[in-house]
Amino acid sequence: MVQGSTNLNTELTQEWLQNYVDDWVRFYRKHTVDGELASYIPQLTKADPNALGVIIMGNNGMTIKSGDVDATFSIQSISKVFAFIVACMDRGVSYVLNRVDVEPTGHAFNSIIHLEMRKIEKPFNPLINAGAITVTSMLQGRTSDEKLEGIFQLLEKILGRRPELDVDVYESERESSIRNRGIGYFLLEAGVLESDLGITLETYFKQCSIKITVEDLAKLGLILANDGMDKTTGEEIIPRQIARLAKVLMLTCGMYDASGKFAAYVGVPAKSGVAGGIMASVPPRIREEVLPFMDGCGVGVYGPALDEQGNSVAGTRLLRHIASHWDFSIF
Amino acid sequence: MVQGSTNLNTELTQEWLQNYVDDWVRFYRKHTVDGELASYIPQLTKADPNALGVIIMGNNGMTIKSGDVDATFSIQSISKVFAFIVACMDRGVSYVLNRVDVEPTGHAFNSIIHLEMRKIEKPFNPLINAGAITVTSMLQGRTSDEKLEGIFQLLEKILGRRPELDVDVYESERESSIRNRGIGYFLLEAGVLESDLGITLETYFKQCSIKITVEDLAKLGLILANDGMDKTTGEEIIPRQIARLAKVLMLTCGMYDASGKFAAYVGVPAKSGVAGGIMASVPPRIREEVLPFMDGCGVGVYGPALDEQGNSVAGTRLLRHIASHWDFSIF
Amino acid sequence: MVQGSTNLNTELTQEWLQNYVDDWVRFYRKHTVDGELASYIPQLTKADPNALGVIIMGNNGMTIKSGDVDATFSIQSISKVFAFIVACMDRGVSYVLNRVDVEPTGHAFNSIIHLEMRKIEKPFNPLINAGAITVTSMLQGRTSDEKLEGIFQLLEKILGRRPELDVDVYESERESSIRNRGIGYFLLEAGVLESDLGITLETYFKQCSIKITVEDLAKLGLILANDGMDKTTGEEIIPRQIARLAKVLMLTCGMYDASGKFAAYVGVPAKSGVAGGIMASVPPRIREEVLPFMDGCGVGVYGPALDEQGNSVAGTRLLRHIASHWDFSIF
Amino acid sequence: MVQGSTNLNTELTQEWLQNYVDDWVRFYRKHTVDGELASYIPQLTKADPNALGVIIMGNNGMTIKSGDVDATFSIQSISKVFAFIVACMDRGVSYVLNRVDVEPTGHAFNSIIHLEMRKIEKPFNPLINAGAITVTSMLQGRTSDEKLEGIFQLLEKILGRRPELDVDVYESERESSIRNRGIGYFLLEAGVLESDLGITLETYFKQCSIKITVEDLAKLGLILANDGMDKTTGEEIIPRQIARLAKVLMLTCGMYDASGKFAAYVGVPAKSGVAGGIMASVPPRIREEVLPFMDGCGVGVYGPALDEQGNSVAGTRLLRHIASHWDFSIF
Repeated sequence: MVQGSTNLNTELTQEWLQNYVDDWVRFYRKHTVDGELASYIPQLTKADPNALGVIIMGNNGMTIKSGDVDATFSIQSISKVFAFIVACMDRGVSYVLNRVDVEPTGHAFNSIIHLEMRKIEKPFNPLINAGAITVTSMLQGRTSDEKLEGIFQLLEKILGRRPELDVDVYESERESSIRNRGIGYFLLEAGVLESDLGITLETYFKQCSIKITVEDLAKLGLILANDGMDKTTGEEIIPRQIARLAKVLMLTCGMYDASGKFAAYVGVPAKSGVAGGIMASVPPRIREEVLPFMDGCGVGVYGPALDEQGNSVAGTRLLRHIASHWDFSIF
Repeated sequence: MVQGSTNLNTELTQEWLQNYVDDWVRFYRKHTVDGELASYIPQLTKADPNALGVIIMGNNGMTIKSGDVDATFSIQSISKVFAFIVACMDRGVSYVLNRVDVEPTGHAFNSIIHLEMRKIEKPFNPLINAGAITVTSMLQGRTSDEKLEGIFQLLEKILGRRPELDVDVYESERESSIRNRGIGYFLLEAGVLESDLGITLETYFKQCSIKITVEDLAKLGLILANDGMDKTTGEEIIPRQIARLAKVLMLTCGMYDASGKFAAYVGVPAKSGVAGGIMASVPPRIREEVLPFMDGCGVGVYGPALDEQGNSVAGTRLLRHIASHWDFSIF
Repeated sequence: MVQGSTNLNTELTQEWLQNYVDDWVRFYRKHTVDGELASYIPQLTKADPNALGVIIMGNNGMTIKSGDVDATFSIQSISKVFAFIVACMDRGVSYVLNRVDVEPTGHAFNSIIHLEMRKIEKPFNPLINAGAITVTSMLQGRTSDEKLEGIFQLLEKILGRRPELDVDVYESERESSIRNRGIGYFLLEAGVLESDLGITLETYFKQCSIKITVEDLAKLGLILANDGMDKTTGEEIIPRQIARLAKVLMLTCGMYDASGKFAAYVGVPAKSGVAGGIMASVPPRIREEVLPFMDGCGVGVYGPALDEQGNSVAGTRLLRHIASHWDFSIF
Repeated sequence: MVQGSTNLNTELTQEWLQNYVDDWVRFYRKHTVDGELASYIPQLTKADPNALGVIIMGNNGMTIKSGDVDATFSIQSISKVFAFIVACMDRGVSYVLNRVDVEPTGHAFNSIIHLEMRKIEKPFNPLINAGAITVTSMLQGRTSDEKLEGIFQLLEKILGRRPELDVDVYESERESSIRNRGIGYFLLEAGVLESDLGITLETYFKQCSIKITVEDLAKLGLILANDGMDKTTGEEIIPRQIARLAKVLMLTCGMYDASGKFAAYVGVPAKSGVAGGIMASVPPRIREEVLPFMDGCGVGVYGPALDEQGNSVAGTRLLRHIASHWDFSIF
């Protein structure tokens, strides 16, 4: 049995892996035509529908970049993971989980049916909109900017630069997200919001508008793969229990109502956003043979053409291909 | 970083671990009063509501047994995992997954609401009753006994003895499972059944009535932890892809509508049955420190007093405690 | 203000009204192409899709017949009204209403969603399948033939001949009505059935297979219009309270999930069946001007091409036209 | 057969009927303890929970008043009927019915489940909140006051005085009706609103806050009983088709999710409000014997203690008693 470690990967040279990934990106770029840009936020329709890019950043120090890796795009639902992490860090895990459950739903991301149907007192999980808005209401601070500060600081620690808002996306988001306002009022009525609804929604729209790159997503995915630790510095940026919990949620609920299929076919914690980003976390693993990135890696993907569930159509397939070839699954 | 291996566990002596587990079983046995015996099948009400037992069987050759480990009980829903495995082995994974999805539902195990609500053409996953009955209909054979044969042969290979049916439970099951007949007719109408409904249900009731022990569950969990391989003989009993898929389903849907919470708090693939059994699979893992059963293990639990979701109330808490102390999580 | 009475209708000669109705039937027969024959019971697909016929039978002794009035067809869901009436006559109204509610649902006739969603202990109303099967279980008798006897005797009293079963339809019904079996098991589980499920379903399939003509439907509608009394003999065939209740149910739930629209646009109690029949009851009414059939009438319609809700497409439009021209509405 | 007319009612003296009604009011006032004041709007909790009053106003000129008939209270959901009438008068019936359906739902008045479940493009009916808010959005005018003007003018014509808003109730309503805001956003997203959401909700909250008395409700009920005509002046205040349609909606959907039971047991079009008012319309009817108010009447009821469905608990029972004794049913 072989444990992933840098020296065992020597034969898997960067160049050799790069060629593979380039081939796969070329192949799956053709799949972008099977999807469509998100249209509910006007700003998102300005993306290049054929774009596809991936960055894999390993604990072994190796980074593979291929395709459209220079794009900047909005983080969208991927921010839900970090809002959850910050809320848990600020308030404690049990405080947060008393107000939002951790069950997958089988429903679309913007479903409200459960709020009525089961007379439940808390939303199903932090990665559907109802749960994410509830989590955002728990962030510390009186204004939306104060509330965002925790997320900004966490991202800055990981990315090495302070993230920026895409103001156009934010405006677009705020103006078009009628359903989120509707969800907000149901949450308000259900009594689960911890802040003023208006400020909560403003924060939520802002957190979704944070500008991000494929490389950022890879870095974020890598930190989570390492249970919240920055292996280069040894600093624990996210408490281990919280990082683990975030990965559980990503695996069971991270890919909207295709989460079950993604778990079955890809098998790693991942979270997608409607701007086309996917962040995936591949923990270190034990295998009989030597495989690339056995020490664990983070993967960032960008492909704004979405499938029906709201996930990057080509990005999902590319990830599945890579995960399958290099046996990324945590199962 | 430390990889689990037998020699590293020397200081974790059997006796030392045994004491721990005995303490925990004693402690959690008191929790059995928080649950109730399943009442929908009369036979199940004859169990000892205060029973609690666990067996942990490691790849390192160590086995810990504690509490009521001599009970024989019916496998119930845990059989769904093996029916799924056999159907995939017989028909191919894609054949099966074309007929049953792999999405968690957030609904109770015997829910039919989705069958109507989403005009879906296939049940949500193989571990809810609707999906399990569909899977059973795909087992090869004309009669219920022929259909069962595949499951029996698989279990025999793993357990080293041919399993038996608990005829009383089967009769009880057949007579009382009205809702499963209702589900059956909806599946028939939806056109997803691959066999006669009567034979399918007969097979389903029989597979749920297979007699099992805590040790059996530990053995079954260990085989799955090892991706289908019997490490002692090197034989691949279940194809790796299918074993992996079974574990994904166990993690996302194995504990009824508490699956999300189980994934969050325990973090390993597991499947429960209403007779009080739980089978859990703990794959080999990499950790900074030396931990028990790092080479991977299977866990069998028995505790017939159930919580509201239908899982062993004390068994679930005991598993959570062990998994947390010894860091079993796959995340 | 004018009260409907025979002598006031003298100028509305039979011939004059006949011409009108003939024109309307000719016109609406073209609408049959907008519908389709019921396909779920093979026998029903043998009907003439372009057939349309109507009979209006007034308390004033006048009868208008137009179009395809010689067809014999199965009563289908219209039987639900008479099963309900017989159950109320046998068991008492409160007995029946303790076991089935009288609320409209807004759902399709064969919906089961409510059975699960609201944890209700009784089906919504006697005119959806779940409620109708429950009502049928309350009919007196041990066998399906004994149970049917009450319905047969009631119909015989009204029609002047003992009705017959269409054995082919019955066989067809029994073999194809999978969903009704599914519903039956859910009712059994809910504990609302008063007889053995098999016998209940056999009775239900038989009652739906009773052979009927347009004239029969007009006669049945007339008796109900007269609150259960046969005006020609003065005999009360159905107790007044029960006849009234049947009309309330027909108005609020009689036309499947188009009942609200039918009430709004036609405004009289009516019940349709998937073989294409409609029975409507027009009670005596007070109007400023002299109008046909002011003393009340029964209307039978036949048009087997159905709309999406399962109502005769041309028949519904024809009824709406007649009701609107002659101001049949009870409102 | 007897047609209701003034001279036939001579023996039914005012005094004689008054005594009956006084007895009944005394009896049913004790039933107020079975209900509770509406609590979701703080202002409503200030009412006298034991109040019960009724006014019956006949076309024969006779008016019976009994119990607490001097109370002034807010019209609440009864305003939905008049908003619907005004929208139909302003925009045309087909315009309105293209945007809101006329189907009963079987769901609670403030349900949103259907909006998601059936992917419907219009709310179920104008008497549930979702439909009522949609109707209000169709009222003419740019501001909420302009929009209200049509309702005010209609009520003024019928009541003989310009109605007033209860400003405290309006403020209370506006501040506490979170769910209605949630519904509003879902309607906005569904694209059915014809005006700005904020103005629509302001109008809706105002229309619900109109001050009304039991006598007002009787007058309003009487006009509807007469198909929109003021019999004393001969003026058609509401077009006949629209008045009829309003009565159909009242019968099928006017008493929240007890509408079916109210139709079955009372049998007349009625609409209730959470402040405790009920307005019922009893059209002229034909009966074998002489009965009170055979020429038709309007009934106003006030009893602020509500049952679980949100209807006046004692008021509903009182109405049922009167309707049953004097055979008010339209069936």
